[in-house]
Amino acid sequence: MEDVVSEKNCTAILLWSSPDKKGLVSRIAHFIYERGGNILDLDEHVDKQEGMFFLRVAWDMNEYTVVPDDLEESFRPLAKECNARCTITFNQSKPRCAIFVSKYDHCMQEILWRHELGEFCADIPLVISNHPDLKFLAERYGIPFHYFPITKENKLQQETKELELLRNEKIDTIVLARYMQVFTAKIVEQYPNRIINIHHSFLPAFAGGNPYKQAYERGVKIVGATCHYVTDVLDEGPIIEQDIIRISHKDSLEDLIRKGRGLERFVLARGLRYHLQDRVLVYGNKTVVFD
Amino acid sequence: MEDVVSEKNCTAILLWSSPDKKGLVSRIAHFIYERGGNILDLDEHVDKQEGMFFLRVAWDMNEYTVVPDDLEESFRPLAKECNARCTITFNQSKPRCAIFVSKYDHCMQEILWRHELGEFCADIPLVISNHPDLKFLAERYGIPFHYFPITKENKLQQETKELELLRNEKIDTIVLARYMQVFTAKIVEQYPNRIINIHHSFLPAFAGGNPYKQAYERGVKIVGATCHYVTDVLDEGPIIEQDIIRISHKDSLEDLIRKGRGLERFVLARGLRYHLQDRVLVYGNKTVVFD
Amino acid sequence: MEDVVSEKNCTAILLWSSPDKKGLVSRIAHFIYERGGNILDLDEHVDKQEGMFFLRVAWDMNEYTVVPDDLEESFRPLAKECNARCTITFNQSKPRCAIFVSKYDHCMQEILWRHELGEFCADIPLVISNHPDLKFLAERYGIPFHYFPITKENKLQQETKELELLRNEKIDTIVLARYMQVFTAKIVEQYPNRIINIHHSFLPAFAGGNPYKQAYERGVKIVGATCHYVTDVLDEGPIIEQDIIRISHKDSLEDLIRKGRGLERFVLARGLRYHLQDRVLVYGNKTVVFD
Amino acid sequence: MEDVVSEKNCTAILLWSSPDKKGLVSRIAHFIYERGGNILDLDEHVDKQEGMFFLRVAWDMNEYTVVPDDLEESFRPLAKECNARCTITFNQSKPRCAIFVSKYDHCMQEILWRHELGEFCADIPLVISNHPDLKFLAERYGIPFHYFPITKENKLQQETKELELLRNEKIDTIVLARYMQVFTAKIVEQYPNRIINIHHSFLPAFAGGNPYKQAYERGVKIVGATCHYVTDVLDEGPIIEQDIIRISHKDSLEDLIRKGRGLERFVLARGLRYHLQDRVLVYGNKTVVFD
Repeated sequence: MEDVVSEKNCTAILLWSSPDKKGLVSRIAHFIYERGGNILDLDEHVDKQEGMFFLRVAWDMNEYTVVPDDLEESFRPLAKECNARCTITFNQSKPRCAIFVSKYDHCMQEILWRHELGEFCADIPLVISNHPDLKFLAERYGIPFHYFPITKENKLQQETKELELLRNEKIDTIVLARYMQVFTAKIVEQYPNRIINIHHSFLPAFAGGNPYKQAYERGVKIVGATCHYVTDVLDEGPIIEQDIIRISHKDSLEDLIRKGRGLERFVLARGLRYHLQDRVLVYGNKTVVFD
Repeated sequence: MEDVVSEKNCTAILLWSSPDKKGLVSRIAHFIYERGGNILDLDEHVDKQEGMFFLRVAWDMNEYTVVPDDLEESFRPLAKECNARCTITFNQSKPRCAIFVSKYDHCMQEILWRHELGEFCADIPLVISNHPDLKFLAERYGIPFHYFPITKENKLQQETKELELLRNEKIDTIVLARYMQVFTAKIVEQYPNRIINIHHSFLPAFAGGNPYKQAYERGVKIVGATCHYVTDVLDEGPIIEQDIIRISHKDSLEDLIRKGRGLERFVLARGLRYHLQDRVLVYGNKTVVFD
Repeated sequence: MEDVVSEKNCTAILLWSSPDKKGLVSRIAHFIYERGGNILDLDEHVDKQEGMFFLRVAWDMNEYTVVPDDLEESFRPLAKECNARCTITFNQSKPRCAIFVSKYDHCMQEILWRHELGEFCADIPLVISNHPDLKFLAERYGIPFHYFPITKENKLQQETKELELLRNEKIDTIVLARYMQVFTAKIVEQYPNRIINIHHSFLPAFAGGNPYKQAYERGVKIVGATCHYVTDVLDEGPIIEQDIIRISHKDSLEDLIRKGRGLERFVLARGLRYHLQDRVLVYGNKTVVFD
Repeated sequence: MEDVVSEKNCTAILLWSSPDKKGLVSRIAHFIYERGGNILDLDEHVDKQEGMFFLRVAWDMNEYTVVPDDLEESFRPLAKECNARCTITFNQSKPRCAIFVSKYDHCMQEILWRHELGEFCADIPLVISNHPDLKFLAERYGIPFHYFPITKENKLQQETKELELLRNEKIDTIVLARYMQVFTAKIVEQYPNRIINIHHSFLPAFAGGNPYKQAYERGVKIVGATCHYVTDVLDEGPIIEQDIIRISHKDSLEDLIRKGRGLERFVLARGLRYHLQDRVLVYGNKTVVFD
């Protein structure tokens, strides 16, 4: 997981998904090499059951003969021939994230603090909330805080305003840091595989509301957290990362909530970092994570 | 988890569940002390939400003034006064286990091997199976193997015969080591909180059939195993022990099955050991495990 | 780990270490019961090899017939008879912690943030540092920051001033949150088993300086962190808590440092919480942690 | 970790280590593609600090235009030009392992049982021991058992005989399954990075004898196991795999040994599987493990 994409050098990252066929690694590697690219990192995966091929390759652009603006265009014929879906990103145009929160601060706190330390190669130009409570925390880190109270009646209107704000700020990734509202399709459709949520259970166990209470009542010996992309079906999007902690009969519901906070923070931070480093490929409802 | 119950000395273990009230630890400890018992290990738990008190205490019987046969009787007045459910066992009468298997050998293999090493303070006088395949394995360890083929038609009859065999052999604990049949109420009722199953998922996720396939298709990043008591509702009995392993997109369904084998073996062995050492108290659908 | 010591009720906690002998649990439980105490939580441990008995018991003082000020005195005869070392604390006089830091912020950040959330039942009236860098962070949480630059020449003088400050502030626990100076015996002697350090390795592996570099060069597949009490031998004090994370050949030294940060934070926070809840008993160079 | 090397198809695996330079992935992938090889799995790693490039690639030989016997030869010019060390193996010539044991059976038991299940794509034609105790276990699995008692006086002679036996049986991998003798240089030199040991501690902590006792006395909260290649310096060879389990003050030395058994078995089995699937590259004293 060495971060090959240092900010000093211009680096490109290609994410590629296509039906598997002979020679794909060779052809893509060769394509980059011929144009003067020095491959820094290459990872590939074949899903034999689905007959699909997935690849992530990062290369040094310093002596590359295609300028960044023409890069997508230059790959198009190869991608078309292989029936591939592919995206290319550069380390020099950082992804821009918006954080959505409600009243719990721990996930937002963790993201902002790691951001301050430089762990995410990203910009976070705004925090959006349906409650005013965490304004102080956004201010602590010098990030503009936008308050959009949500009621049943105004939800669609408020989402329209939020979308406008996201567009103005050129946001490409939305982080739901324990945001307690469910987005309507209006927003979800605009950000396919670009909205990252943290659910405080080991999905698919305890989907829906109050997962710690559900876990406490079921008497499980382990609780989990799941970082996933948001789709139009609640808690069923592609899973990026999961982790767990052990609990016992000694733990009250409050203990689960307290211990779970630490878990949620870390699982969200890891999942977000994978996403921001272009390490996640979605296929069907599953992910390939090249860590 | 130091095993206080060495075979050299006569040791008694009391498991106690009752509504919580003032002075219970003091009274029970004093009761044992007055009769010459030396407490080797005491663990207690209060479930404040339910107002329940749970206790496990082990003591040396060498200078105890009540003989083993009168022990249950001697505790009766105190238990009655406190509205307690309690059981007393001695290390000198080992629990007797029956193992039920079908075709997968790994859980049976693990139990028999650990048994051979002396990790369970128990006798295993028989293996029962609905298939003849694992006879060789029972023979390898010198344990009688009983073959009861099961069809829709003969199921109740066969269970009747199995019950008779279990009774004749004075079995008190049944271990389902990947036994692929669901017991009818007939057997379950005879062995309340005495039938231990291993389910190859992190319950309540992926209950029912083919949990690895379900996990593979959902794209989870972790798979689990659950050791639980069998009740009349499939995969919903009180959980004794759970554990997990990390997986990734690189793992095929076959890898999940292979990696899961190791997990199942260990989770079942740990859960069974807790049970055989009288470390598990069941309350409602949950367990207190004094490890 | 349910925190029985809520702030609403007056609760006492007794920590007891003595040579093992018959009837100790019974006598201590009875002693408390006779005086009207309701035992909320009792945990005990016998180290058979050393012949030692350890106990932690928490009880409700609401109807207790001995007033808090006389409590230590009331236990003295029993403790003397049993040759016991024992301490009693009340939830109503919170422990007071000083945090020592240098330039790394992550451990201090974690402690202050959890403190803000109420996870530690303690007061943190000051931060001391040998560098001015983290003043901003102390200010963010409204905690006085004291800067004591240390050179070879002034070390003893500065420690004298620090000790004076600690005494004035009635500090009973010192947290070394990646403080890069080694205390002289002068301070260590004043706070036996009261100075908590986080070492960024799995002790005893990689004691001393640059443990991540040592780990990287040895090619281990796991790195750890250790929370321990400080004694006069560097990195050899009694261990309170440890944890680990997996690494691989993909991880550069910088990755180890980044991943280790998360680990250090959590291990220190867990160890500190055990200490502040009076869950740790030291015996020789080992600890009993009643979690 | 999907096992690309099914036995149905002829597959080749190339392991390559060389100084890093531009175009290596492309050239190697292209080389294979040009000769009709279909790449099934490719993993590479660059150690930037050392300037080294490591690669593992597996390809389908069905339509490959170079016959297996000429394969090494065909790669020689490229390897020479790149100053590379490389090895090529085929799934159709299974590696041959010898197991060395003394008196502890658990590691041998685990390896033989997994071997029976088909988890290792290998042959195990013999077990060698310096004690007769585990003959029964080798016989249980139908594997010839060779008894070579070792004394100070006869050690070199016995090793000479062992080496002869290993050569006659065409052994390429030696597994030390808790073998309590230290090989002299005589054997070690013949099997560089081909002798796999399990050490029952988290190396480099507790190297040498009695690691569980050392761990117990130090009072650690976690114990580990390490699978590594044997070199001429005891317990200092390149580490392939490590894992840990949590312990507490409740665990006696016997508990550590019991719990550690499970850990050792799994860590050795995982490390051995990586080795037998040609997933391990050694560089200096470190390993790259392409899992």
